[in-house]
This record gives sequence, structure tokens and C-alpha cells, in this order.
Amino acid sequence: MKLIDFGVREDEKKYIQEWSQDNKIEVKIVSELLTPETVQWAKGYDGIVAYQQLPYDEKIFDTMNELGIHVISLRNVGVDNVPIEALKKNDIRLTNVPSYSPEAIAEYSVAGLMALLRNLKHMIRKVDKHDFNWAPDIGRELNELTVGVAGTGRIGRAAIKIYQGFGAKVIAFDKFHNPEIEKEGLYVDSLDILLKQSDVVTLHIPSLGKGHSVINAETISEMKDDAIVVNTARGDLINTKDLYDAVANGKLYGAVMDVYENEVGIFNTDLSNQEFSDQLLDKVIKSPRFILTPHIAFYTTKAVKNMATISLNSMVDELKTGKSENEIDLDK
Amino acid sequence: MKLIDFGVREDEKKYIQEWSQDNKIEVKIVSELLTPETVQWAKGYDGIVAYQQLPYDEKIFDTMNELGIHVISLRNVGVDNVPIEALKKNDIRLTNVPSYSPEAIAEYSVAGLMALLRNLKHMIRKVDKHDFNWAPDIGRELNELTVGVAGTGRIGRAAIKIYQGFGAKVIAFDKFHNPEIEKEGLYVDSLDILLKQSDVVTLHIPSLGKGHSVINAETISEMKDDAIVVNTARGDLINTKDLYDAVANGKLYGAVMDVYENEVGIFNTDLSNQEFSDQLLDKVIKSPRFILTPHIAFYTTKAVKNMATISLNSMVDELKTGKSENEIDLDK
Repeated sequence: MKLIDFGVREDEKKYIQEWSQDNKIEVKIVSELLTPETVQWAKGYDGIVAYQQLPYDEKIFDTMNELGIHVISLRNVGVDNVPIEALKKNDIRLTNVPSYSPEAIAEYSVAGLMALLRNLKHMIRKVDKHDFNWAPDIGRELNELTVGVAGTGRIGRAAIKIYQGFGAKVIAFDKFHNPEIEKEGLYVDSLDILLKQSDVVTLHIPSLGKGHSVINAETISEMKDDAIVVNTARGDLINTKDLYDAVANGKLYGAVMDVYENEVGIFNTDLSNQEFSDQLLDKVIKSPRFILTPHIAFYTTKAVKNMATISLNSMVDELKTGKSENEIDLDK
Repeated sequence: MKLIDFGVREDEKKYIQEWSQDNKIEVKIVSELLTPETVQWAKGYDGIVAYQQLPYDEKIFDTMNELGIHVISLRNVGVDNVPIEALKKNDIRLTNVPSYSPEAIAEYSVAGLMALLRNLKHMIRKVDKHDFNWAPDIGRELNELTVGVAGTGRIGRAAIKIYQGFGAKVIAFDKFHNPEIEKEGLYVDSLDILLKQSDVVTLHIPSLGKGHSVINAETISEMKDDAIVVNTARGDLINTKDLYDAVANGKLYGAVMDVYENEVGIFNTDLSNQEFSDQLLDKVIKSPRFILTPHIAFYTTKAVKNMATISLNSMVDELKTGKSENEIDLDK
């Protein structure tokens, strides 16, 4: 069995090489993305692994068929950029990595919150200038706060365990009740109640679509004074201007934003050498009351290792048995 | 009953005023420190509360005796700056606040660690320059690590609960075994074993005296590669130069330093407008692998409230009953 892995970043290589040695299966590592041109390099290989944000061209799959390759395994979750009809036409099966590390996201949301509660952004900037005064930037303790966890999927549940270790009071909301969280009696009846009762609101729910925020001027007015919003989920869950204004005028304490509604074209690029045109984001960045990071919550050694190895394991299952637990149903 | 509270900072006032209202006891708030001059302002009051780092002059207590005041309550732990013989001579009792918030310190040590594991210092600096690339600064997850807690007093035990919530493996060392931690089977037999087995070593032990570090070139050589040191306890527990070198040469991953062996004269002052002479500390500050803060772990709203109110409660107990649970035995 010989596999080829496309679009591999430097930090992924180590894990693919380790997997290759442990499993005694040859894996060709390619840093280029998968295109109608590069797919030719897969000649003689049994399966293609890939990860990219750009769309996969339909022609790729015609060529795969010609090369006799009938499985593609993605190293990520999303399959929106895959032309499903082209796969079906060419009798190609598709796998993804549905979950690579819910703890990566949960832990980051806590890291951001703790940084905010202890004024770390401001302190780092002060100490960089050799200002070692700690007053008047007094910290807050998490054990005194009520944390409202919106969404109790894998990430929300991982976050709940961490918050309970801190001794915080945890409440939760989800349309679908998880039996374990239900048994603990953590659920409140609506998102409104969660927003009203929480000192910290942490979002672990899917996007409701552009323009359908859960945090905006109206909902913020219902929130506690000095409350905090943590968003490591999707940028459009928040009306950023409303949130910024609420922090600037002292209604809310601050926010952790690892996602941003207009992040495409900004996050994961270096804009340090050009005019920066997003005035709102610039104000958020300058404020010590916002911990703003460019979508890094998922980015841990464990998550990257899982993306690399789970995709390869799925490929092996497909090639050996004709199916895998991570195969996508192309008819859904 | 009328009390007078010296050396009160802005952030303390609110809590003293609230206590005064709740207890219907007059408390005069004074921002000046307690000196042979200002002690005269205590005339007509029944008790003196104070907090300062400067030594208390012996003459203060002669004057207290003349004014008929025989109790002084400190808002902090340490009584090293109090001339005990002068108190005994003047028949003055002394109380302190032995514990105002172990959770404040424990939570800060975790906040610093999480910031380090997720490269927050570096990310904040990058984002400040509009560089939104997340690679290559990959994060690490706490749930995968072994955390060695040195010292299982109130702070160490509070830290252990938090680390267990993260799902980290916790081991501990202390000369005195706490029954609860013993029952959980967390103790290893020596500090050496703790250092050898831990990915994160977090110090919650008292100073062993200047020049008697527990983290130095010799002990670092026994530690795991990429290990992390967290110190919110005492600066002289670490040989800072050895630690810096070990991080700079890649042996250790990084460190959280909320204390520093030469912090006196630097921390809690603003040195931004002058030449900065501590070259070692400057290198530590510049490094993204050190989270260096100026002794802020204790500084939370809960801790400050406890310092303000516990000292006042002790004073009331002393004045009403002649004793309090926080009275210092002057003969020890």
C-alpha cells in the first residue's frame, strides 16, 4: 500500500512520518495543494490524503478515476469545498476527521478567559515598557463566577469539566440535552436565561447564519453588568460592533474573540506591512479588555497529530475493507 | 466602637466602606502609612488597622499606649516589619490575615501556564502589529501533561483541583503529607522524582533562603525536555540565569515567573522613563517563552476584600472579647 498526502504544512510532517514508520506504510508528503495538475503525482499510489481551504476542482476526480484511485481522505472536518457529484460520478469514496481535539478548543477558551480575568494583555504591554505597577489593574477569580456554557457538544462538555475544576458555578443551554449534563442538573430552559444569569457566557454552538447573532445590543442589555463573552466558535454569533460598544461604555467587562465575523482575508495572513482598513477590529485589538487571537484555538500538537493520523487510518480502513467509520455518506 | 484604617489603597476603600455599613461601625479611612506622626490621628479611636511594606517604627506603639489603644490588626500575612518587643512593652495585641485567597494564587499560576502553552504573549505582540499568522506557533494541551505540584498547602491543593479538572495527570511533593492528597495517591517520594517526572513543575513552597534554589542548572539537567516551570511563590526558589539559559538553549520550553529573585525595587514601580539596568530580567521580559508579571497573583477583588474585612473582623473580636483567631502569639 502506498499513500500520498497533499498540502502538508511543516508542523504536520513529523506526525505523518511517525505514522508511516509505525504502520510500515509508505506515505509521500507533498506541500503543494491538490489541483488538476498535482493530482498527476498520485500515479502509482493507492489513496490520496489532502487538506486545503480552496475548492477541489472537479477535474481532480476524473483524473483519480483514470489513475485507478477511489478514496480521498481529508485531514479536516469540512467537506463544503468538495464537488460531491464529481466524486459520485467517478465512484470515489470520501472520509473526513469529524473530531480532532475538542479539548484544544475548550482549553483555549479557558486560557483566553483567564488572560482576561488577570489583565494579562495589559500587563504584558506594561512590562514590555518596564512599567511594573500592578495597581490599579485588579484581577477577578473564576471560582466566584457563574459560567454559562452555550452548547453542550463535545467542546462544551470538555469546557464544563474544566470550569468545574476551578470551582465555578456552571449552567448550560442546548436544544439537545446531553444525558450526563442533564443528570448534573446544569441545564437552564433558554439561551435568554443563560445570558441573564451568567458572569461568563462561552459559546460552543454552530453558526446561525450571517446576520443571526446571539450576542448583540438587545441581548447584551439583558446580560449582567461586568459580564464576559468568550467566542471560540463562529464569528457571526456576535455583532462585534455592539459587543465593542458595550465593553467601551462599561456595560460588559470584556471578551475573548478567537473568531471574528469578518475574519476571512485577515486571519492567517500577515498584514503588518500594509494599511489596515478594518477600523473596528483595530479598536478591538488595541483594547486591553479584548483577547483577540486569529483562530488559534484548534491549533495544538495533539489536534494536528490527530488530523494527520486519523485521516491516514481512515484511508487504510477504506483500502483494506472498503469502508471506514469516518466515511461521508455522499447521498446526504 | 470607632476604628481607623491606615495605608488604604483606592481599590480597598469600597470593601472597607461596605464592611462599615454592614457592621454599623465607624471606620476612618487614611491613605497615609502608619508612622510616629500619623499615629496621632488615632486619638479617640479604639483600634488601628494597617498595611505597609515599610517597617513600623517603635515609637508608634508608645503613642498607641498613651492614646489607650491596645490592638493593631494588619491587613496582610507578614509581621516581619513589626517590632514585637515594642508591642509587648506597651501591652498591644497584634492580628494578621493568615490566608486571604489561596485560589487567587492558584488560579493565576494556571492563567500564566495556559498563556504560555498557547503562546499568548507572542500572539498578542504579533496581532498588535497586524500579523495574524497562527503558524508556526503551535499550542500544547494541558490534558496531555503531567503537572508536578511542589507544596500541598492551601495554594498547592487549590491548584491540584484545577489541574484535575483539565484532565492533567497530577503528582505532588511535600515534606508534610495532606491526608486528602495522600488518599488520592498523588505524592511522590522526593522533589527530585517530581522534577524528573513532570512536564510542568509548579512551585507552592516557602523560600529556602537566598542562594538555596530548587530550580538551577543541576536540577534542570534532570528535568524532562520541553518542561515548564511555574513560580508564583518566591523568587529565590529559582536561579533565574540558569532557567533563562535552559529556555534559550531549548532544554526547557518556558516559564511563568510572577516573582523574581531581585524583584525588590523593580516590581510595583514604574521604570518606563529611565535606563533599565537589569539585563537578565530584560531578556526574560523580551522572550515569548517567559510569562513575566510583577507579583500580581495575589491581586484579585476577592483577596483584597478578604484582607480588608478579615482584619476588621479580627479587630472587633479583640475589642469585644479580648482575643481573635488571628491573634499572633508574641512570645513565639
